Amino acid sequence: MSPYSKGVEILSIGTELLLGNITNTNAQWISEQLSQLGLNHFRQSTVGDNCDRIIKVIQEISKRSNLLITTGGLGPTPDDLTTEAIAKSFNVTLFERPHLWDEIKQKLSNSNLKDDSSSLRKQCFFPKNAQIINNPRGTAPGMIWEPIKGFTILTFPGVPSEMKTMWEETACDFIKTKFSDSYSFFSNTLKFAGIGESSVAEKINDLFNLKNPTVAPYANLGEVKLRITARAKNELEAKNIIKPIKEKLKKEFSKFIFGEDNDTLPSVLINKLDERKETIVFAESCTGGLLSSSITSISGSSQVFLGSIVSYSNALKNSLLNISEKKLEKYGAVSKEVCEAMAINVKEKLGADWSIAISGIAGPKGGSQDKPVGLVYISISGPNNHITNIKKKFNSTRNRIEIQTLSVNVCLNSFRLILLSDRK
Amino acid sequence: MSPYSKGVEILSIGTELLLGNITNTNAQWISEQLSQLGLNHFRQSTVGDNCDRIIKVIQEISKRSNLLITTGGLGPTPDDLTTEAIAKSFNVTLFERPHLWDEIKQKLSNSNLKDDSSSLRKQCFFPKNAQIINNPRGTAPGMIWEPIKGFTILTFPGVPSEMKTMWEETACDFIKTKFSDSYSFFSNTLKFAGIGESSVAEKINDLFNLKNPTVAPYANLGEVKLRITARAKNELEAKNIIKPIKEKLKKEFSKFIFGEDNDTLPSVLINKLDERKETIVFAESCTGGLLSSSITSISGSSQVFLGSIVSYSNALKNSLLNISEKKLEKYGAVSKEVCEAMAINVKEKLGADWSIAISGIAGPKGGSQDKPVGLVYISISGPNNHITNIKKKFNSTRNRIEIQTLSVNVCLNSFRLILLSDRK
Repeated sequence: MSPYSKGVEILSIGTELLLGNITNTNAQWISEQLSQLGLNHFRQSTVGDNCDRIIKVIQEISKRSNLLITTGGLGPTPDDLTTEAIAKSFNVTLFERPHLWDEIKQKLSNSNLKDDSSSLRKQCFFPKNAQIINNPRGTAPGMIWEPIKGFTILTFPGVPSEMKTMWEETACDFIKTKFSDSYSFFSNTLKFAGIGESSVAEKINDLFNLKNPTVAPYANLGEVKLRITARAKNELEAKNIIKPIKEKLKKEFSKFIFGEDNDTLPSVLINKLDERKETIVFAESCTGGLLSSSITSISGSSQVFLGSIVSYSNALKNSLLNISEKKLEKYGAVSKEVCEAMAINVKEKLGADWSIAISGIAGPKGGSQDKPVGLVYISISGPNNHITNIKKKFNSTRNRIEIQTLSVNVCLNSFRLILLSDRK
Repeated sequence: MSPYSKGVEILSIGTELLLGNITNTNAQWISEQLSQLGLNHFRQSTVGDNCDRIIKVIQEISKRSNLLITTGGLGPTPDDLTTEAIAKSFNVTLFERPHLWDEIKQKLSNSNLKDDSSSLRKQCFFPKNAQIINNPRGTAPGMIWEPIKGFTILTFPGVPSEMKTMWEETACDFIKTKFSDSYSFFSNTLKFAGIGESSVAEKINDLFNLKNPTVAPYANLGEVKLRITARAKNELEAKNIIKPIKEKLKKEFSKFIFGEDNDTLPSVLINKLDERKETIVFAESCTGGLLSSSITSISGSSQVFLGSIVSYSNALKNSLLNISEKKLEKYGAVSKEVCEAMAINVKEKLGADWSIAISGIAGPKGGSQDKPVGLVYISISGPNNHITNIKKKFNSTRNRIEIQTLSVNVCLNSFRLILLSDRK
């Protein structure tokens, strides 16, 4: 038996990957999905937009694995070669599916794309017995095709949002039914804010050696996650395996845990405010709209978020937020005093229960000895007019966007902790 | 000749990659380095921490390429198997290098690492005639080894910072001397807005068959790019190869091209306004701060951007932007009439030369027969009080964040076109 026995492989197709123009996030996402389905995923390959090389690698994979997932090369341009190369790998001809061409024309007429669509026609050609994977977010469909007995190929476009939707709506169920054994992996992720990855890891070092469930830490900018994964026959069994570990973690970290799975700090806050029937507004300076857009990116935010004033210039801090020129001159725009006044005035002016104001130096220019790049003031004002003032100094190695993102994170997490201690 | 002829491959080793726990940023970074060195990089593979599978893939690669870069699997734990597997691939024994063990002990005593160092000893074993790549940032050295004539392997740890330092300090020079001919690749990217990828591609189909320079299209949400890549002995020669193609493209697409290389729509607009010594403000409804933050993410935006009003609720459209309740009731917040009034009023109130207002339905809720999800109004008002009104209907399959992102893109690109036709 080959050392691969039978398993799943991922093949990423695109010269831009070999040139290092883009990072292969698709392979990571699909790997994660395959893990959750409990499939044996042994190997990944990447090749460029070259028909001979694509054929060679597909023929190799067909000899050692029973399922191949490809991404990339399904589009309308001449270097989109995937379907053609797969067909050639098994000496098969492509046939046009007229209904797909109708669908593409329909999609184009529904959108603003004033595209001369003739090149899109090649996206309608598939092997005779291939099943189509609809692409609700784009024009290039994928396929599920078993060219030889015991070897199935699923194709996806390289655009991550299209690939993910097609996976979730069509491919996932197919793979689950045909390739998963009776065991699957179930995960439950706890999300942390206000604590670093190494602080989390140090406290629970023993948990990382567990076999079922496993516990693994991940970190993004300003967010730490612990994923608890159980291998089980069904979801109920998995939940029972996960439960004691989850309870242990919740006890250990209590308020550092802000949510689970798909929760985000904005979504958690919107839900909390919605329950409390309270509203919020912002006065943003250094984050320049990022705090507002983090909230308004969530559906349902209009229930609790009324609006905000982005007062980037000092003149607007004066005219829109009534910060006196004297105060601006005496303390500077980046100061506890100005930030506090911004929070008080925006709440009053916009008529909300809560307000958050933020002023700081996002850099890379504009820093000084006294007020270096990375210095940020945050003020939060609530229904009882109690004010919380926060001063942060982010590491000066952080770039502008990181400082803005981390500032928004501190705003949201500080507000979460205030809501927690201010039970209605 | 095999379709790979002789070239370079990257092999990433680590079960965490197959589980989808981490994204393979190393492969992207190394690919970029190889491109810059002008090497033929044909293929990438990823396998887990499994000795048999590592051996199999290394033996395959040794038959089709002449240089292999590996990352991962050099550490002290039992699942770090790379050096051992490479040696086994060519039936060679590993020998300890005593001076490396001295170096590791020295590094440990210098650091805070309270590691039981006995497991680190395996990091000192290498094939007899391998050259060591020092690791200034960690304890695991790599190697440069030619196990069979015409096939060389370079090994690196998986930790990106260690790998990059070792590449820059040792490996890069070695590869340049031994594998690079005197040619390198130089790229120049043209960036498009307001036109789809397939429309761009169809007009210049002939260019995609060029050999030097090559022309390749890429697309993100709302942005299309064409990269022109020349293979040349130096930058000047490359520029001369690229120039005629670039001029042809600029003539063909003229105003659809908004910039080059690191330009973004926000950065281009900030520069344009800065040159004109004009300022801008926004009134945002459906984009909820995203338009403002797209501008303020760029350093230097405070020169031209004064601030904005995010009027998410109708009450704030009335109180902050003086949109009469009558108008809001008659036309609705998502209408040409309200959007136009938002643009006029925000410009006057905030005192800028230009204003952009946007109102729409980002979904997924809030749509109706008359005003479906994806409907967006944009109004742009300039120094001469001329108003441009734009109505867009994005495809309803778009999700909330895509509609917001595309709306911002249309705002910025429409404004760019207005500035182009309004030469000062």
